[in-house]
Amino acid sequence: MTAARPLAVIILAAGQGTRMKSALHKVLHPVAGRPMLLHLLASVAALEPERQVVVVGAGREQVEAAVAGTGAVIAVQDKQLGTGHAVAQAHEALAGFAGDVLILYGDVPLVSASTMRAMLDRLNRGDDPRAVVLGFRPDDAAAYGRIIADGQGMIGKMVEYKDASEAERAVTLCNSGLMAVRSTDLFVLLDQIGNDNAAGEYYLPDIIMLPGAQSAVIETEAWEVAGVNSRVELAGVEAMWQARRRIEAMREGVTLVAPETVFFAHDTVLGRDVVVEPNVVFGPGVTVADDVVIHAFSHLEGASIERGATIGPYARLRPGAEIGVKAKVGNFVEIKKARLGEGAKVNHLSYIGDAGVGAGANIGAGTITCNYDGFFKYRTEIGAGAFIGSNSALVAPVRIGDGAIVAAGSVVTQPVGDDALCLVRPAQVSKPGWAAAFRERMVAKKAAK
Amino acid sequence: MTAARPLAVIILAAGQGTRMKSALHKVLHPVAGRPMLLHLLASVAALEPERQVVVVGAGREQVEAAVAGTGAVIAVQDKQLGTGHAVAQAHEALAGFAGDVLILYGDVPLVSASTMRAMLDRLNRGDDPRAVVLGFRPDDAAAYGRIIADGQGMIGKMVEYKDASEAERAVTLCNSGLMAVRSTDLFVLLDQIGNDNAAGEYYLPDIIMLPGAQSAVIETEAWEVAGVNSRVELAGVEAMWQARRRIEAMREGVTLVAPETVFFAHDTVLGRDVVVEPNVVFGPGVTVADDVVIHAFSHLEGASIERGATIGPYARLRPGAEIGVKAKVGNFVEIKKARLGEGAKVNHLSYIGDAGVGAGANIGAGTITCNYDGFFKYRTEIGAGAFIGSNSALVAPVRIGDGAIVAAGSVVTQPVGDDALCLVRPAQVSKPGWAAAFRERMVAKKAAK
Amino acid sequence: MTAARPLAVIILAAGQGTRMKSALHKVLHPVAGRPMLLHLLASVAALEPERQVVVVGAGREQVEAAVAGTGAVIAVQDKQLGTGHAVAQAHEALAGFAGDVLILYGDVPLVSASTMRAMLDRLNRGDDPRAVVLGFRPDDAAAYGRIIADGQGMIGKMVEYKDASEAERAVTLCNSGLMAVRSTDLFVLLDQIGNDNAAGEYYLPDIIMLPGAQSAVIETEAWEVAGVNSRVELAGVEAMWQARRRIEAMREGVTLVAPETVFFAHDTVLGRDVVVEPNVVFGPGVTVADDVVIHAFSHLEGASIERGATIGPYARLRPGAEIGVKAKVGNFVEIKKARLGEGAKVNHLSYIGDAGVGAGANIGAGTITCNYDGFFKYRTEIGAGAFIGSNSALVAPVRIGDGAIVAAGSVVTQPVGDDALCLVRPAQVSKPGWAAAFRERMVAKKAAK
Repeated sequence: MTAARPLAVIILAAGQGTRMKSALHKVLHPVAGRPMLLHLLASVAALEPERQVVVVGAGREQVEAAVAGTGAVIAVQDKQLGTGHAVAQAHEALAGFAGDVLILYGDVPLVSASTMRAMLDRLNRGDDPRAVVLGFRPDDAAAYGRIIADGQGMIGKMVEYKDASEAERAVTLCNSGLMAVRSTDLFVLLDQIGNDNAAGEYYLPDIIMLPGAQSAVIETEAWEVAGVNSRVELAGVEAMWQARRRIEAMREGVTLVAPETVFFAHDTVLGRDVVVEPNVVFGPGVTVADDVVIHAFSHLEGASIERGATIGPYARLRPGAEIGVKAKVGNFVEIKKARLGEGAKVNHLSYIGDAGVGAGANIGAGTITCNYDGFFKYRTEIGAGAFIGSNSALVAPVRIGDGAIVAAGSVVTQPVGDDALCLVRPAQVSKPGWAAAFRERMVAKKAAK
Repeated sequence: MTAARPLAVIILAAGQGTRMKSALHKVLHPVAGRPMLLHLLASVAALEPERQVVVVGAGREQVEAAVAGTGAVIAVQDKQLGTGHAVAQAHEALAGFAGDVLILYGDVPLVSASTMRAMLDRLNRGDDPRAVVLGFRPDDAAAYGRIIADGQGMIGKMVEYKDASEAERAVTLCNSGLMAVRSTDLFVLLDQIGNDNAAGEYYLPDIIMLPGAQSAVIETEAWEVAGVNSRVELAGVEAMWQARRRIEAMREGVTLVAPETVFFAHDTVLGRDVVVEPNVVFGPGVTVADDVVIHAFSHLEGASIERGATIGPYARLRPGAEIGVKAKVGNFVEIKKARLGEGAKVNHLSYIGDAGVGAGANIGAGTITCNYDGFFKYRTEIGAGAFIGSNSALVAPVRIGDGAIVAAGSVVTQPVGDDALCLVRPAQVSKPGWAAAFRERMVAKKAAK
Repeated sequence: MTAARPLAVIILAAGQGTRMKSALHKVLHPVAGRPMLLHLLASVAALEPERQVVVVGAGREQVEAAVAGTGAVIAVQDKQLGTGHAVAQAHEALAGFAGDVLILYGDVPLVSASTMRAMLDRLNRGDDPRAVVLGFRPDDAAAYGRIIADGQGMIGKMVEYKDASEAERAVTLCNSGLMAVRSTDLFVLLDQIGNDNAAGEYYLPDIIMLPGAQSAVIETEAWEVAGVNSRVELAGVEAMWQARRRIEAMREGVTLVAPETVFFAHDTVLGRDVVVEPNVVFGPGVTVADDVVIHAFSHLEGASIERGATIGPYARLRPGAEIGVKAKVGNFVEIKKARLGEGAKVNHLSYIGDAGVGAGANIGAGTITCNYDGFFKYRTEIGAGAFIGSNSALVAPVRIGDGAIVAAGSVVTQPVGDDALCLVRPAQVSKPGWAAAFRERMVAKKAAK
């Protein structure tokens, strides 16, 4: 999977993002639960780049924090002088680097590694184009810059929409802005472009039309280069991502009863013959094995689910939930940092956090593991085959033994031995006639009001 | 915002609504949580009309009750003799009124105040049209009446589809039925129209073609004049309203991860950098401040949420819920008529009703405020920094002091002092081996069956 | 409803279904909560067939189990030698049968009884066609076989797409594969077709072009003959079914606020003026009477709901839930095998299973019926007008009398008499200052870490 030649990637992320109306940097808005910029870096990682430079304007700190650990470095564009100027800010960060340079955009997050690789492959084919531009054919070409190319994809002209003739506007091949170019050419070319235009900016595409070698274009589908300048466009990119992921899931053998109501995260893993009912939301970090049924209205995040388990409806799995083979998590149940053993059941209205539940254990409705004292978290261990009566509170740290029974309504603070019964319950008192008398008083009081 | 001349509004609501198959009057079916008729009256209110008349046939009582307090009066059309006849029924209610009259339809609820104002402005421009008709160009003009107008929007002819020539049917400008006309003209004109047609009805549009001054048409977008004659059309109007509101929310700086799964009410207010995850339903009366995250599957109604709070997933906020700055309402939690102070947390499986929760208080999983004795409601006050152990029941009226701790599983009926521990719990009893013996008996019993 | 002549139905279900990537036989994948094959058999049942034969290849056991009780028998096609060969496998099962034969496909589940009847009616009209083929006109005719027919629907030619001329490909009438033919003709004709084609298979449509009488075609809409070869197509068929059912519901007088978010089962029954809010899922077996409101995020299955009841939001009704007139099931409430009497209320966070709840009873938040001891299920009976305090556990078998009150937090194991108060609660203990001291210790401990 290593690209043929050393690779550097420049990701432009210096736009103001004003239309987002957000305190969050535009490239950090998430798609499928992951910031757009990290989608790009994940795709880029498959190409094993030597260097990755993110060019940032305002909001540098946010971006810097977000790319920590990815190997990407930050270059700063202080003034917004155009895409050409932005790329030039990466010069220092690429000092000493010789190889191919891929120029991406932080707000164009869906470009795949294979498309990136295709751009690099084209750059290094025998005819040595100066640069490779990624083109696309949108449904509505609107005001995109047009690419006039010959049958071999060699570019005759690249022209902004506003400068284009009628004939040029009739061309459907548009410029995505993405480009591959050799490091030895890039900065030399950038030095030659001017800013003699209405905005007084330096435009990256201008390097294509400089005298010298011709550049090439390769095409990709429009969805892959969809850009995000507003939250409406962000929702649009999310929708495209989800639509594609749903099809992929179904092709791999997952039943989605109503695909349009299921939302995946970027890293969701699903086995074969998994059934997902309507209205299920996957947050990041979920792995689902074969033959699992996920009922409606479930919300899963950071959870692993083993073969044949049944989840929901209304199951809330939070990070660290590990659901064992054929285990069952029912309605209005929250599981957090807890492992359910094989065949264990938590069927109704329970909170199981920081806990281990043994194989075959049955946790009654309304059971709460009291895992927090306001300062620290503690663990609850429930043995295999244990039976926890309804409405019990297990005050951690506490252990319920294998095969033990906790009577309904118990507040368990002491360990319960294997096979023991635990009972925490006062005697039942009955006051005959009390309710009738109470009603009489209340009715009178209500009448008096 | 006052219209240039005195304004009266006539809203026709006398249709049978048979296709709705409903005991509820057609114009009272809600869109975005508000009856269609009240959508119109709310838009009309921006024009400060002197009089508002709703012309009703069957179901008068329902409509009368619905408009109580709006200033609108009811006129009754006993027989269904057409739109012209219906408008004539408002004559008495407009006695003594001199000014402009706007004719609207109770089942055409989305017309905006600005469009209404544009109609009135056009009526009072120098060329003095007799009436102003609101036209639109639907995707499929189908059987709508056509408007033949010149380049200045002066109407040459208005023609029913069934009477139209091929050439007239090719015209795409259609009649919405909405009209503005001077009060001094309206009833005089209505007296002149006949009912010489197949249905024997008096048609309002016929006043346009009477001899005398020409009328004008102004155009609006088709969605604005969409009418509701069936529940399918009602769902269509709801969908149009929601689609527009979602775009508006995103443009104002709200992230909607899956806009098509979020449903707003007519009066939802959302701050900037609010994030709304998939599947969230807003009932009427919700205000959300900046930087609030509303997780999936939440249902909010009559609630105000302050800056930086986190809601859901599966949070149910009912009327009177006031969620403080950076407070947190977690899963399977219902809040009703209760205020959570800054940073307070109710994270799991709780019901907090008729209560005050102090800043920084932590309400454990499964906590219930017992606010009702079958006759009256009582309040629970929980102090700042208090810690309520899981599965507790707080029997109102009761006060838990600042910094107090309630042990898990307690049923609290007496006040708890500041910084006190409250414990309501019997001793834990263990019966070693009991569970094993029980299992043995039950297995035998099961085998015997 | 009996067809004019004796009827036998052959349903082909021998395809491998490889693209489903499933261990479940393709024809058993459900649509609207019912296996595709059973959709067909239900439609077929309206025609009262004498015999029903399902031709199966792999996965015979699964199919055999699924059709148990329907009267259908299984015929086995050991080798995949084409549709003609598959039909021939039903010869033995039809021994002695004389009448009409309808050939259907297990993966084409939406064909209606009325369409089937139209095919049979056409077969038996005076002009005696050899067979009747069901044609359709898809949006994209793509690679479907074309039917060349005259104005009377008599078939001149049926041709596979790959063998069709340009002119033939321009024909929009396509072959669905469904066919009606007389039993006396069918097997004779099948004996005459060959397998002289690339795949070496016997194709059923080839019987149409054999010398002799002409066959006829009748047309139906494309959605009705949509086939399922992958989970993507399965989701497509589900979506078509749901879209049609939603329209039908609205036409019958049900309000669907957001129709696209409501999912019905094959047998859902809904009264008039029922309102269904967004995001509601119906499993099989639900009956809803007039004037019921089903709030958002509810999930109903095997439940009957009487007039004027209110359900949800977040209500989970499981099989055997019977909700009485004007009863109320609120949020995070699960009802299973339990009847709520008229006006009874279970408003919050409760589990009511294997129970009877009397008219007007009020079940407090967090109430659990403890119906299971790990081996057997037991019933809870709650009397009319009883009041169950919050967070109570009712340990079945147990009876709470009419008008009785159970105090909050009680674990009830003994019967409670009519009008009695039941109290199971230890004394409340207060330790002043304990919480402050605890906090001090914990803060120190935290600092020490």
